[in-house]
Amino acid sequence: MINNAPPSRAGFTIERDTMQYTNFDKIAAYRQLADYAAAWKGFDFRTALDAGRVRQCQTPMAAGLCYSWAAKAVDAGALKLLQALVDEQELIAKYKALLNGEVINTGEKRKVLHQLLRGEQGQPVIENGKNIGEFYRKELQRLGDFANDVHAGKFKGSTGKAFTTVVQIGIGGSDLGPRAMYLALENWAATEGVKKLDAKFISNVDPDDAAAIMASVPLEQSLFVLVSKSGTTQETLANELFVKNKLEKAGLDSAKHMVAVTSETSPLARNPAYLDSFYIDDYIGGRYSSSSAVGGCVLSLAFGPAAFREFLSGAAEADKLALEPDILKNAALLDALIGVWERNFLGYPYTAVLPYSQGLSRFPAHLQQLDMESNGKRVNRDGQPIAYNTGPVVFGEPGTNGQHSFYQLLHQGTSTVPLQFIGFTESQKGDDVTVDGSASQTKLNANLAAQIVAFAKGQSDSNLNKDFPGGRPSSLIYGKRLTPAVLGSLLAHFENKVMFQGFVWNVNSFDQEGVQLGKILTKKVLAGNSGDSALDAYSKMLGM
Amino acid sequence: MINNAPPSRAGFTIERDTMQYTNFDKIAAYRQLADYAAAWKGFDFRTALDAGRVRQCQTPMAAGLCYSWAAKAVDAGALKLLQALVDEQELIAKYKALLNGEVINTGEKRKVLHQLLRGEQGQPVIENGKNIGEFYRKELQRLGDFANDVHAGKFKGSTGKAFTTVVQIGIGGSDLGPRAMYLALENWAATEGVKKLDAKFISNVDPDDAAAIMASVPLEQSLFVLVSKSGTTQETLANELFVKNKLEKAGLDSAKHMVAVTSETSPLARNPAYLDSFYIDDYIGGRYSSSSAVGGCVLSLAFGPAAFREFLSGAAEADKLALEPDILKNAALLDALIGVWERNFLGYPYTAVLPYSQGLSRFPAHLQQLDMESNGKRVNRDGQPIAYNTGPVVFGEPGTNGQHSFYQLLHQGTSTVPLQFIGFTESQKGDDVTVDGSASQTKLNANLAAQIVAFAKGQSDSNLNKDFPGGRPSSLIYGKRLTPAVLGSLLAHFENKVMFQGFVWNVNSFDQEGVQLGKILTKKVLAGNSGDSALDAYSKMLGM
Repeated sequence: MINNAPPSRAGFTIERDTMQYTNFDKIAAYRQLADYAAAWKGFDFRTALDAGRVRQCQTPMAAGLCYSWAAKAVDAGALKLLQALVDEQELIAKYKALLNGEVINTGEKRKVLHQLLRGEQGQPVIENGKNIGEFYRKELQRLGDFANDVHAGKFKGSTGKAFTTVVQIGIGGSDLGPRAMYLALENWAATEGVKKLDAKFISNVDPDDAAAIMASVPLEQSLFVLVSKSGTTQETLANELFVKNKLEKAGLDSAKHMVAVTSETSPLARNPAYLDSFYIDDYIGGRYSSSSAVGGCVLSLAFGPAAFREFLSGAAEADKLALEPDILKNAALLDALIGVWERNFLGYPYTAVLPYSQGLSRFPAHLQQLDMESNGKRVNRDGQPIAYNTGPVVFGEPGTNGQHSFYQLLHQGTSTVPLQFIGFTESQKGDDVTVDGSASQTKLNANLAAQIVAFAKGQSDSNLNKDFPGGRPSSLIYGKRLTPAVLGSLLAHFENKVMFQGFVWNVNSFDQEGVQLGKILTKKVLAGNSGDSALDAYSKMLGM
Repeated sequence: MINNAPPSRAGFTIERDTMQYTNFDKIAAYRQLADYAAAWKGFDFRTALDAGRVRQCQTPMAAGLCYSWAAKAVDAGALKLLQALVDEQELIAKYKALLNGEVINTGEKRKVLHQLLRGEQGQPVIENGKNIGEFYRKELQRLGDFANDVHAGKFKGSTGKAFTTVVQIGIGGSDLGPRAMYLALENWAATEGVKKLDAKFISNVDPDDAAAIMASVPLEQSLFVLVSKSGTTQETLANELFVKNKLEKAGLDSAKHMVAVTSETSPLARNPAYLDSFYIDDYIGGRYSSSSAVGGCVLSLAFGPAAFREFLSGAAEADKLALEPDILKNAALLDALIGVWERNFLGYPYTAVLPYSQGLSRFPAHLQQLDMESNGKRVNRDGQPIAYNTGPVVFGEPGTNGQHSFYQLLHQGTSTVPLQFIGFTESQKGDDVTVDGSASQTKLNANLAAQIVAFAKGQSDSNLNKDFPGGRPSSLIYGKRLTPAVLGSLLAHFENKVMFQGFVWNVNSFDQEGVQLGKILTKKVLAGNSGDSALDAYSKMLGM
């Protein structure tokens, strides 16, 4: 057993004197779950999934959402063992330690504080006399004030025209989350009359990305948000210069058209090349940065600071609910555990995220990063090898589109893919049409309900080509309408789910050493000294 | 053994007197491959992947593309057995039978003729005296003439304004392929000066999709392409009425703003509600319809008929190359076989598609449909159960974006995900910037080359958190620039790859019975008589 992190005593009462960080397969619950799964005869949805189970198997979430897990293949016995796992692996205590500012990111020796961006759930986190929560709140206030100033016309483009468009330049966590969130709220904001600016995103180092976006925006009226925590991201710096060249060619002063979101120690900080700079620190991982200025700047500019604060409040409420030790009352924890059950004991190597909401069209791409970059690990938090599976492959597209695409395999393929549905009673715009006696929103949700049951129960047919085996487990997160607070609740749910799974697997969910080797080899190629004949041959093929 | 399809004698010489359709695990090559894989000690990329292997392991494709498979875990022994599999399972003879018009879609008792849309590789396909190739060519000519007429101003909106925008209304195969192709060629067309109209797409039954698109286009100058082969697709008909209502409210005559792409027997055919109709038939599956009027109408309107014909010519060249029986000379066949080797003998349940080209941003979503809907099957072509795995889960995002997202798991996760890279020497727009001594396009390709080698060879480190095990196999399709002919080559490559895999697995790659149950249950929900208490409970949750 490894015990290198002394538990924090303040803020929360930690349940035990010494908190243990133990490999999953070394705890009693692992063996018990494995034995239980080995004796498992499968879950008979055709008899077990009835109205009673659907009504009963629900866990409230923040901002009025609800996690329905009736169509997951878990019974009372499995749930009891999963609760024992939570207690034995001290998942809530570890979450509290994280909130209190312990160095949970062991590889990089960093605290993990994205929850602190949206509320103070633990004790104040003080470092070298600096209250980090206060720092985050100050930056939140500053970016909100800046957005209000832009909306009020205090800042204008260098030819004196008001800004109509904001363009985020960033990649990975500086792109996927903010982009998914912008798309998730664009229709809401237009309907509520709070949409202030259009937003676009430049991410890829492929120059066609920046070229196409730059050709599509009104340069004189565009404000660029350059996002790089280190200030050294290759793609982002290349795209920054691409943008600056275009602004200069158009006779515009780029310093009046660009703000930076970065760390205080980066070369982008307090740099006169930018109209202003907003700060994050090393305790905010890229894929967890949507709640910081990385997401807040572009969203506050697009929809106003109030919308972003509502988003944060929904997330904060979710963070608070995630402290609940009873798995039946903690949706993020339960979702995490069911995922572990499916990954490690039922043997499913993937999960599909299927939002029945066009606004969430890129939310699966964000979750793909969040999950796969956090828990796609093969060593434990102390860098020792582990002998069990960790994070699954995550993919997804919005429904009903996916039904006409890859659902064939989900229903009748040779592998089982666990499913995560998301749905809302109301559309965002409320603009609908009735055909054949039902509105489109009703059709959307009829499809969603039908899919859950079709996957779970299947349908026998003597023609095996038309036979559906069923037994495909799914969960459903549902709510009334996709608003900023609901989006915050949803995002925090998945962040916390991934965190809990990382604690179960005893991995560090907050570093990403797996991206380094590619960067190193790329630099060698660009410097002309790869030292590898195969790499040289590939480079030559590709025109270098 | 099953032999219910008499071989065609004309057009091609079929190699044997009777062609056999046999389950994969019943042929000799299956057992030989299984034995070979069982004795397999893994492929040591660190020593085997050198410049010589990279230069040698390449197979030319149509339109100047090349399939590089040096970084795939296959050796001469495996390749020999895979060639034996081709011969024993008669893959080329089956492809020829398909081209000649045999009923390859056994479940629906239909021919499979999407290759015929782009060229006549086999004998003329005649049915009830109708030459089907001639019918396809006539429709191609008609839609090209129509697009030219629109561009010449012969057709205008009902207020007399020229069309500037085309909006496709369709879902699944009527959306993903055409949308991916439009995005793939938009930058090319703008650069070449052949872009005629902007294109948008409405697919989801979520009313927010149609509402947002309708709010973003100039209605008076928008031409809508309604696509539904059957003319009964629930989502598409709902969206059609949504659009028509908006046009009427704007005082526009929808019959002057809408064309239909459908089958000749559908209610949409020869209907005065549409300006014109273009036809496909039952031999063109939705996910294979990009080469028909389904893709051709919107692409010819957006970029001109010549661009669409170039696309078809690239695809036709690929179809011809796919007739080659030597696996080292047939990229689609070799790609298919390596996929089977990975799926059935190395045990990998997924494949990632990673285009280093922003233009191909939605190409993985199209391939996801193409592959998972075609080969996500658990019965053979005769409806009998099979005892081996079929199609994998397919997912992907463009590089370098993906590097900052899910590559962590690909490099250091506990599971191996085979990879399919795509790259081009030149960008589409040729608009670039030099930072730190290299253009963005060079950085893009340096990253691509570096990733292939990093995945294959890894890098040892005594700190296991920074250790890369390598052994992650990948292939690379590369070419000069993404043009219409290159896109045609690329699309046909994957279509033919999926077809060959279907032949190996002895499944019907051309039906999709797995989508039916959801449709049936949805109708029951909407009619208020689901007959299932769980389904009623879910429906109630979702506001019904």
